Amino acid sequence: MLNNFFNPGSIAVVGVSLEKEKLGNQILKNIINGGFEGDIFPVNKKATTSTYLNGLRVYPDLKEIPAKVDLCIVVVPAVYVIPVIEDCGEKGVSSAVVITAGFKETGKKGAELESKLAKIAKDLGVRILGPNVLGIIDTHSNLNASFAPTYPPSGNIAFISQSGALGCAILDQCRGEGVGLSKFISLGNKMDLDEVDFISYLKDDPQTKVILGYLENIGRGKEFIRVAKKVVKEKPIIMIKSGRSKAGRRAASSHTGALSGADEAYDVAFKEIGIIRAKTLTEAFEMARGFSFQPVPKGDKVLLLTNAGGAGIMATDACEDYSLNLTSLTEDSVKKLKEKLPPASSISNPLDILGDADPDRYRLALDTVLQDPNLDAIILLLTPQTTTNPEGVAKVIDELTKKKEKTILSCFMGGEMVNPAISILNKAKIPNYKEPEAAVRVLRNMINYRFIRERKEEKVEFFQVDKSDAERILKEEMKKGHFEVGGVNALRVMSAYGIPTVDNYLVRTPEEAVQVARKISGPVVMKIESPAIIHKSDIGGVKLNVSVDQVESSFNQIMENAERFLHGDDEIVGISIQPMLKEGKEVLIGAIRDVTFGYLIRFGLGGKYVELFRDFSTKLVPLTPSKVEEMIDETRIISRLLKGFRDEGPSDINLVRDSLLRLSRLVQDIPWIEEIEANPLVVWEKGGVIIDARIRIRKEG
Amino acid sequence: MLNNFFNPGSIAVVGVSLEKEKLGNQILKNIINGGFEGDIFPVNKKATTSTYLNGLRVYPDLKEIPAKVDLCIVVVPAVYVIPVIEDCGEKGVSSAVVITAGFKETGKKGAELESKLAKIAKDLGVRILGPNVLGIIDTHSNLNASFAPTYPPSGNIAFISQSGALGCAILDQCRGEGVGLSKFISLGNKMDLDEVDFISYLKDDPQTKVILGYLENIGRGKEFIRVAKKVVKEKPIIMIKSGRSKAGRRAASSHTGALSGADEAYDVAFKEIGIIRAKTLTEAFEMARGFSFQPVPKGDKVLLLTNAGGAGIMATDACEDYSLNLTSLTEDSVKKLKEKLPPASSISNPLDILGDADPDRYRLALDTVLQDPNLDAIILLLTPQTTTNPEGVAKVIDELTKKKEKTILSCFMGGEMVNPAISILNKAKIPNYKEPEAAVRVLRNMINYRFIRERKEEKVEFFQVDKSDAERILKEEMKKGHFEVGGVNALRVMSAYGIPTVDNYLVRTPEEAVQVARKISGPVVMKIESPAIIHKSDIGGVKLNVSVDQVESSFNQIMENAERFLHGDDEIVGISIQPMLKEGKEVLIGAIRDVTFGYLIRFGLGGKYVELFRDFSTKLVPLTPSKVEEMIDETRIISRLLKGFRDEGPSDINLVRDSLLRLSRLVQDIPWIEEIEANPLVVWEKGGVIIDARIRIRKEG
Repeated sequence: MLNNFFNPGSIAVVGVSLEKEKLGNQILKNIINGGFEGDIFPVNKKATTSTYLNGLRVYPDLKEIPAKVDLCIVVVPAVYVIPVIEDCGEKGVSSAVVITAGFKETGKKGAELESKLAKIAKDLGVRILGPNVLGIIDTHSNLNASFAPTYPPSGNIAFISQSGALGCAILDQCRGEGVGLSKFISLGNKMDLDEVDFISYLKDDPQTKVILGYLENIGRGKEFIRVAKKVVKEKPIIMIKSGRSKAGRRAASSHTGALSGADEAYDVAFKEIGIIRAKTLTEAFEMARGFSFQPVPKGDKVLLLTNAGGAGIMATDACEDYSLNLTSLTEDSVKKLKEKLPPASSISNPLDILGDADPDRYRLALDTVLQDPNLDAIILLLTPQTTTNPEGVAKVIDELTKKKEKTILSCFMGGEMVNPAISILNKAKIPNYKEPEAAVRVLRNMINYRFIRERKEEKVEFFQVDKSDAERILKEEMKKGHFEVGGVNALRVMSAYGIPTVDNYLVRTPEEAVQVARKISGPVVMKIESPAIIHKSDIGGVKLNVSVDQVESSFNQIMENAERFLHGDDEIVGISIQPMLKEGKEVLIGAIRDVTFGYLIRFGLGGKYVELFRDFSTKLVPLTPSKVEEMIDETRIISRLLKGFRDEGPSDINLVRDSLLRLSRLVQDIPWIEEIEANPLVVWEKGGVIIDARIRIRKEG
Repeated sequence: MLNNFFNPGSIAVVGVSLEKEKLGNQILKNIINGGFEGDIFPVNKKATTSTYLNGLRVYPDLKEIPAKVDLCIVVVPAVYVIPVIEDCGEKGVSSAVVITAGFKETGKKGAELESKLAKIAKDLGVRILGPNVLGIIDTHSNLNASFAPTYPPSGNIAFISQSGALGCAILDQCRGEGVGLSKFISLGNKMDLDEVDFISYLKDDPQTKVILGYLENIGRGKEFIRVAKKVVKEKPIIMIKSGRSKAGRRAASSHTGALSGADEAYDVAFKEIGIIRAKTLTEAFEMARGFSFQPVPKGDKVLLLTNAGGAGIMATDACEDYSLNLTSLTEDSVKKLKEKLPPASSISNPLDILGDADPDRYRLALDTVLQDPNLDAIILLLTPQTTTNPEGVAKVIDELTKKKEKTILSCFMGGEMVNPAISILNKAKIPNYKEPEAAVRVLRNMINYRFIRERKEEKVEFFQVDKSDAERILKEEMKKGHFEVGGVNALRVMSAYGIPTVDNYLVRTPEEAVQVARKISGPVVMKIESPAIIHKSDIGGVKLNVSVDQVESSFNQIMENAERFLHGDDEIVGISIQPMLKEGKEVLIGAIRDVTFGYLIRFGLGGKYVELFRDFSTKLVPLTPSKVEEMIDETRIISRLLKGFRDEGPSDINLVRDSLLRLSRLVQDIPWIEEIEANPLVVWEKGGVIIDARIRIRKEG
């Protein structure tokens, strides 16, 4: 479907100027100079039959063009864009790039114009890239339908950019550093086509090996997840997602909500999809070069080979930082290296072949380690010392690593003395990095990608649950105008999904309270029940360890505290009484709806101090057993507490696993829940119960 | 004292070859080609009166040189180094650079030779740089006494490197990127002169504005702290300390120890001194260029000015990551900018002057903001778009920022299109960074340095303590062969220093236990007391909340558990009984001796789960009130718990402050303590006590 954007047989440029050098003319020139081989039709409404521009006949109107047009580049002022798209529809041009700015990005009026344009284009079946884009480049079909001032070298990295201005810098940098692109796509306002469409197209594009993107937001989150999960099975996706700081924390009533930010959702989603998130452009391009040049490592066993001790130490530090496995050489390799290398060499990992290593010594070492079956990847380090011959070493590397059975990265450090060698390495498709840290970071991500690609999709488990009961409870609350559901009813919803909850009795008088407490036999917990009170203990709405003879006075005291806190209309439902339970590990489980990606589910250390400890893991719904396992492993504290810390025995982790899977099912079943949280879920050696829970319902739901 | 190393009037090179192009000859040539203006005397033992090399008379012996020699460069094989140094002594040459390798770095034999050399040099009063160095460079006195293959441009950054091989890469990189050095010093084995000597010298070197270092270890930690603290008041020190991963975790009996690694000590010391620690060479040079070119910011109010929205967003993200304060423009500036800039501009921070901004628009904007009294620093961002004129903008920046009242950094992004502009900026001493993240990181560190330089030294408080009592208790333990002191005696030591401890009674029989429990009246805590048992609760050696009638059976049970755990010789001192205290916040305070820097003192969340929460701050002894305040602020959890979280009131933080200061005094007074820890120190709303403590005594102490 998008083929016409990258491989059109013919292009019209609507909006060239006949008098001045305007944007349209520049694009026209770029198309011509780029070497595009199809027909090119400039359009200007003042054109006559004898109007020519850059040797091309100019037409007054798209419809006047006496041939088929595959792609229309629109550069007319904003107010004229709609008529041009209407012409496209009439002429049967199904693909258009709207370069023109002045739409949504300028405010309300522009946004209205854009909606109108979107509707018309959709009705006419014209697919649009833009508006407000730098354009589109395909280095393999020699298409430069952009007003970018630099044309990048050809290669196998596709770059998608939501910022045209950054796009200019990136294209220029690619040219400067010899980084080859297959395609460059400026996304602009993403009125129609967006990142989802393009990554989907690039998945099957034979010229693209790596997909790189700069995004400021993702519009269709769930579609993005679905498509990107398929794409990463074929090709790595590296993304810079900016606008992290803009993400205001959402107003939320639970910890699950309070601890979430929009950027966290991107982090969670990218991680789950298997997208590599780069923090900076440099990082992104470093990684892209690695994937572009080298095969994905077969495994995670890495060797450092160096002529400089200091560089080896820095690389080793970085390997520890990035948990990269510095493996041992086989005995056979050690033996061979001992025979060949000078005795002062350090035959270890890093393998230090000393400061006076010449190309021959690099050859001896490299030849041996390339044959070592215990190695998947090698980082070759070099500093230009007195007798070093960097170019000679580069040539040796080129020669010996042609077969590409292992992943080879290099780190030739320095300036003028190593630059010619780096050029040789670049041609040999050995990605060179300025310093060890960068090479190690790239390799870490390449190894991660190997695991991402091999990951298997898991089935989501189904449970026997009472969906209708849960829905009924929530709908009754909504009828009463309660969109924040706490206490007894929230527990009942959890219970309907088979998550164990504490016995909970709602009482309205001191007498009822005493009666219930007698029935429970043993100390009790008393809590205020009011939709207006979220943090109950903060206002003195909770009493722990109350004995039967204290129940009456506690009842009165809680009521007093609550009334002091409440305003006119706020309602007190009553006081809930629960048995005082034995101590256990306090866990939090919760879910919150993210506008982009759907429900995020959270597991972590629960209790009163949740916000202080911030020990949690977040994943996308639906959960699967292995995702639940990852969540548990990703917590620093609660995972270890549950597994049994020091003299304590293990707690019932299965209960936690099961509860998380059921909670995931719950929010999938009842999608008008905005936020749901159980805190704490108290877990004992055997069993456990939720003591308190809250649910927030979406008002429009 | 070190002046002869950088500004010698004459140099001898001992160990040139008369036949082949060896290392000595290369150094000789480097000295000549570097433009050294003093006398140069090559030495080779086979020289006759008519032996010449590179036009210079060669002498057979240092003593034959008919003139004063200020600096001797030694390049003879390792076994001949000592005689050459003896000659130095005899001739009165007080400064020598020993290039020769083959000493400590090669193993035991080399180390012996090095000790011998050190002793002789010291006796003769010859100061030595080396052995095993690349040499020394001073670009201002045109001295290149090194065998480095690249000579760096002249500038105001001094570079000290413990790795010669990395030094080569760095010098080459400096040349490639036009980074100017004042001096380059290869430290080698640091047999005599080390980083302490050189940073001390560089403090007063008028040609040096910034000190940069690559270190793998620091030998004289306390000296280093003392000297470096003075140096950073004058000049920023930027350090890369590698070998982080080598740092094995020390075997330690307390949490304070177990949580420490050697690298942490460097982190703590650098932070306290005010040294900027760089993670990579790139980061180090980025920062050095900032300090080298620009004034230290007057404050922390930063503006981003950009022609690219995307670049502005990335910079804003980075500012949030590095807690940089994006300030508001004054009303006056806003008014002026509104008059001058196109209406679509975003007159905010970032100040976005749009993609078609030409040099004139940059001039209008920059001219206004440079006069804004509310700004201390500006980051100028640019991407090369269609009508951008990067060189023109660079010239405007050069012209307008000559006065250097505000700190100006730039981030011109791209490749070929911005490189000429970057050269202009470089000449104008505007440090340019490849991406916003880097510029922001540099500015953050420059602002930090402003605060470091303004920091005032604080007096250490003195307390009334009973040092002799503490010493007596510990010495008695040592007499018994106990080097791990726990329980009652550790508490008594703390108590001698005025830190409140729980009432603690040591009993040896069930009868005694019952008697004590009666006296306490109320439930008690019982703990085993044995030097062999460190983690008491892990072996069932602790019983909490024991009522008087349970004391006897608990006594027997603890004894049983302990005996099951202990081996033949291990001694049970008894059982300690304490009152069961009301709950409070559990704090850990401790100190451990670091071999390099002396005592590290730690404060954090205490209790049983210390290792899980890892919520602590570490500083060097001696503590001062403001350091204690920093420690508290640096913890994420316990600081907030102590200040009162949610419905809880504040705890007695003053008690914590006082206890930390007293602990600091304790380890200063008794320097044969290896490790000391109180955990928990239970803190209540008013008051608090240490419940358990341990002390490890240095065996050789």
